[in-house]
Amino acid sequence: MPITVVGSIAYDAVKTPFGERERMLGGAAVHFALAASFFEDVRVVGPVGDDFGEPQLDVMRSRGVDVSDIERVSGGKTFFWRGEYGWDLNSRETLDTQLGVFDGFQPKLSERSRTSEVLFLANIVPDLQIEVREQLPHARFVALDSMNLWIDIARDQLVRAIESVDCLILNDAELRQLTGKPNLVSAAREVLAWGARGNGSGADTSTAGQRGPSVIVAKQGEYGAALVTSESFFALPAYPLESVIDPTGAGDTFAGGFVGYIAAHPEEELSDELLRRAMAHGTALASFNVEEFGTERIERLTGEEIAARVEELREITHFSGAPLKLRA
Amino acid sequence: MPITVVGSIAYDAVKTPFGERERMLGGAAVHFALAASFFEDVRVVGPVGDDFGEPQLDVMRSRGVDVSDIERVSGGKTFFWRGEYGWDLNSRETLDTQLGVFDGFQPKLSERSRTSEVLFLANIVPDLQIEVREQLPHARFVALDSMNLWIDIARDQLVRAIESVDCLILNDAELRQLTGKPNLVSAAREVLAWGARGNGSGADTSTAGQRGPSVIVAKQGEYGAALVTSESFFALPAYPLESVIDPTGAGDTFAGGFVGYIAAHPEEELSDELLRRAMAHGTALASFNVEEFGTERIERLTGEEIAARVEELREITHFSGAPLKLRA
Repeated sequence: MPITVVGSIAYDAVKTPFGERERMLGGAAVHFALAASFFEDVRVVGPVGDDFGEPQLDVMRSRGVDVSDIERVSGGKTFFWRGEYGWDLNSRETLDTQLGVFDGFQPKLSERSRTSEVLFLANIVPDLQIEVREQLPHARFVALDSMNLWIDIARDQLVRAIESVDCLILNDAELRQLTGKPNLVSAAREVLAWGARGNGSGADTSTAGQRGPSVIVAKQGEYGAALVTSESFFALPAYPLESVIDPTGAGDTFAGGFVGYIAAHPEEELSDELLRRAMAHGTALASFNVEEFGTERIERLTGEEIAARVEELREITHFSGAPLKLRA
Repeated sequence: MPITVVGSIAYDAVKTPFGERERMLGGAAVHFALAASFFEDVRVVGPVGDDFGEPQLDVMRSRGVDVSDIERVSGGKTFFWRGEYGWDLNSRETLDTQLGVFDGFQPKLSERSRTSEVLFLANIVPDLQIEVREQLPHARFVALDSMNLWIDIARDQLVRAIESVDCLILNDAELRQLTGKPNLVSAAREVLAWGARGNGSGADTSTAGQRGPSVIVAKQGEYGAALVTSESFFALPAYPLESVIDPTGAGDTFAGGFVGYIAAHPEEELSDELLRRAMAHGTALASFNVEEFGTERIERLTGEEIAARVEELREITHFSGAPLKLRA
């Protein structure tokens, strides 16, 4: 099923303890699209300024990404983010954010982008997410990402946006903040209840078209990710790397692998089994993303490398049962 | 193989968002011993004061723990810790620590405690860990826990203590602090290299008696735990609980399950397979510990409950392979 993604297309300036880049291709929609392109057709919707180059578009084109709905705003400047990471990459400071063409952006989706059966609403202002969601009323699977800023200043709109999708993908701390529940499982169950509230019945991961999310993915950074549905829980550690260079875009790359894998299985129902395999592919993609700056590693990634890493993830999480008579 | 544990036996005053206890049984050696008692004979070494009651000793006795090397110091007061946890239990503040009888403590091990083939050096001053380690020169498996305080004020002694054991169990942030390496894998490899340094050859998890640790366990709190050896990596998420009441002692309970499981398999070589199953049992034990205050849940835990939870851990971490032809 083709995928439409709406979100930021950006230039990032990033400094980590292991190096820096002054102006590299970034943005949630870009990281997502490159990852998802290993699985399905991807159409990117978002604005750029006059300063956005053909080489950057070519990075996406070379992975078969449809960039025709990337709107070039005449006289505008591309979204810009500058950040710096601390010693162990677990903390990051935003030093500058310039909305540029995102200020006042109104998404215009082509007919082609509106026919996608899968939609990813990357982290943008919730009202825009709702607007785009409404332009794809018949999408079979819609996932949404967000961030603490919108929980702080636009929580009501964000909750409305979340209630309109099938899957919420959020950092675990933000999931707690959003719900006011102190722990991951209770926070996820709270959002699942929003889903159930809409149609008056229990959330059911196998039923498309219900109101509100039936799938919650908590991103846990270096610790991996967890999946909560009304029936099941699954957690997968991050792939262990001896050297992490730049975490920027890891979450969106994860989402691209996760949503992409689901999109590549149109005949399969949204089972726990399918979702878990999607988690593994998202985790594998994210692990490559952080090995180098920005999109550098993903640009030359191969399908064989992804498949091999998914197998490694199986290996490093596997343990055998060995019944042992324990002492009373 | 019988286990000797040396460490704190304490009264804890704990406040969490879900309740509080003014004076409950605690201490690393106690949490460890109760957990390990499901697998093997356990002998506890450590001091208590006149204020330590028979009911507290009976908690250990009722699980078959040998308390004859618990030394009652006449006129002394039992180690006391008071702490309070934040909203999501991820932060905790120590409000009071009274060393009491631990001030000036010299461990005296009975002949029986010295014959144990497995030794756990719970978090105490590194010089005491070394002293006890030297009293069990022929132990087949020795594990050590520590904390940031000793990295700050007694790093050299701590490194010496670590070099004398087979397995280091530490919080992941402390492992980074200890080694100055920013990421888990590189930090663990650094400590494994200390082990290799001692005997001039590569670390080998299957060889007993080498100098320095061949097994590193990084405790990751709510995220679970990771295992690093020279040949392998394994990570296991924490068991998902909708309600966590009190995390105090979770790490020592984990260690009790982990070390206990290994001790219960004297005929098996220290393979990756065995270590992974030990991780699962430690994780299961820790998950019960946090369901209630202090030792309350573990006191009435059954072997069947542990086995069932290990099976659940297998279920929530399992995913199937499904080869998918990815796009070039």
